[in-house]
Amino acid sequence: MKSYRFQDILDLPKEYRRNFVNSLSGYKSLCLCGTINFEGQTNLSLMNSVQHVGANPPLMGMLIRPDVVPRHTLRNIETTGYYTLNHVTEAIYRQAHQASANYPAEVSEFDATGLAEEYGTIHPAPYVAQAVIQIGLIFQERHQILANATQFVVGRIVEVRIAEDILRPDGYIDPALAGSLAGAGLDGYYEGRRLARLAYARPNQEAKEIDT
Amino acid sequence: MKSYRFQDILDLPKEYRRNFVNSLSGYKSLCLCGTINFEGQTNLSLMNSVQHVGANPPLMGMLIRPDVVPRHTLRNIETTGYYTLNHVTEAIYRQAHQASANYPAEVSEFDATGLAEEYGTIHPAPYVAQAVIQIGLIFQERHQILANATQFVVGRIVEVRIAEDILRPDGYIDPALAGSLAGAGLDGYYEGRRLARLAYARPNQEAKEIDT
Repeated sequence: MKSYRFQDILDLPKEYRRNFVNSLSGYKSLCLCGTINFEGQTNLSLMNSVQHVGANPPLMGMLIRPDVVPRHTLRNIETTGYYTLNHVTEAIYRQAHQASANYPAEVSEFDATGLAEEYGTIHPAPYVAQAVIQIGLIFQERHQILANATQFVVGRIVEVRIAEDILRPDGYIDPALAGSLAGAGLDGYYEGRRLARLAYARPNQEAKEIDT
Repeated sequence: MKSYRFQDILDLPKEYRRNFVNSLSGYKSLCLCGTINFEGQTNLSLMNSVQHVGANPPLMGMLIRPDVVPRHTLRNIETTGYYTLNHVTEAIYRQAHQASANYPAEVSEFDATGLAEEYGTIHPAPYVAQAVIQIGLIFQERHQILANATQFVVGRIVEVRIAEDILRPDGYIDPALAGSLAGAGLDGYYEGRRLARLAYARPNQEAKEIDT
């Protein structure tokens, strides 16, 4: 085992440190975040920090660094109130990666990447038509991380659109069955292979596997 | 595509809704969080919400629901200031799952699961000896999600201990090479297979693959 202490990490070359620290947290979710502004201009950005916050009410959170690309995303979320999260699959991950490029404000990443907009009826934000799991959210709250001004944005789920055959009988969505990818670091893309689902753990009792 | 709106989700049976919403965010990181209290009693809990917050200074965040098992974890983090995060691999995921059981306060999940404590020299929190990626953190800040009282806890990395052969020449840690697992929902365990690393995206230019 090699050990890196706080000062060792600060002393690493910048690109090395970015790769190292970004990949320390392990696998990440990969979602495309779709928004629209009041002028009707759409925006699409790649998020690798989306996470579950609560089931009742249904809430999701994500981190946005205001100094990097998704700044239009944060502005659109706060002004219109709505945004979508769309799972990245193998079929679209190169386009999803391209959506993280720094396009000028007047260019929609939908147009630039060839991903198609799709709209529901209960909110204005665009879904990614190619995604088999599409989530519509309304902005709920934002917390500023004091240590580096990163924003933790929480939204309430207002709509889920999902290909029915990937939803298991007990409500579980198997990401391997859905073809959703995992991310790692700044630029790694992975598919998953299921080892097991394990039943709710109880003291002094081995957890059974769930077949669903 | 099937559509579920906000009220449809609220109307789902409780267990179904828990599985459904918990798995909507896609793949999650899987880490064991080790802490110790001032009486020397250790605690270990399974976290599926650890994420990268920043590289300089190196910061990680995680969500803790105060009404579920890891409450001793949050108390130990805030009183002693220190905690560890240890990647879950195939060799230990069943023990990691067992650490999520609701043991009485006087039982250390290290003892209950057979995972071994390991200590460094710069902070008191226990690492998991079996983990090939071990991260030591000092508590930095905590944000309460107003919508459901979940806590977003941010720590600064004070030490990283890592098996040297899984660190790539550019600082990247490949989770598939490390054998780290991804989680899904409340109970799914997955190994990853790398599709690609893609170079920094630029407008109107196809991203090359990174071989490292």
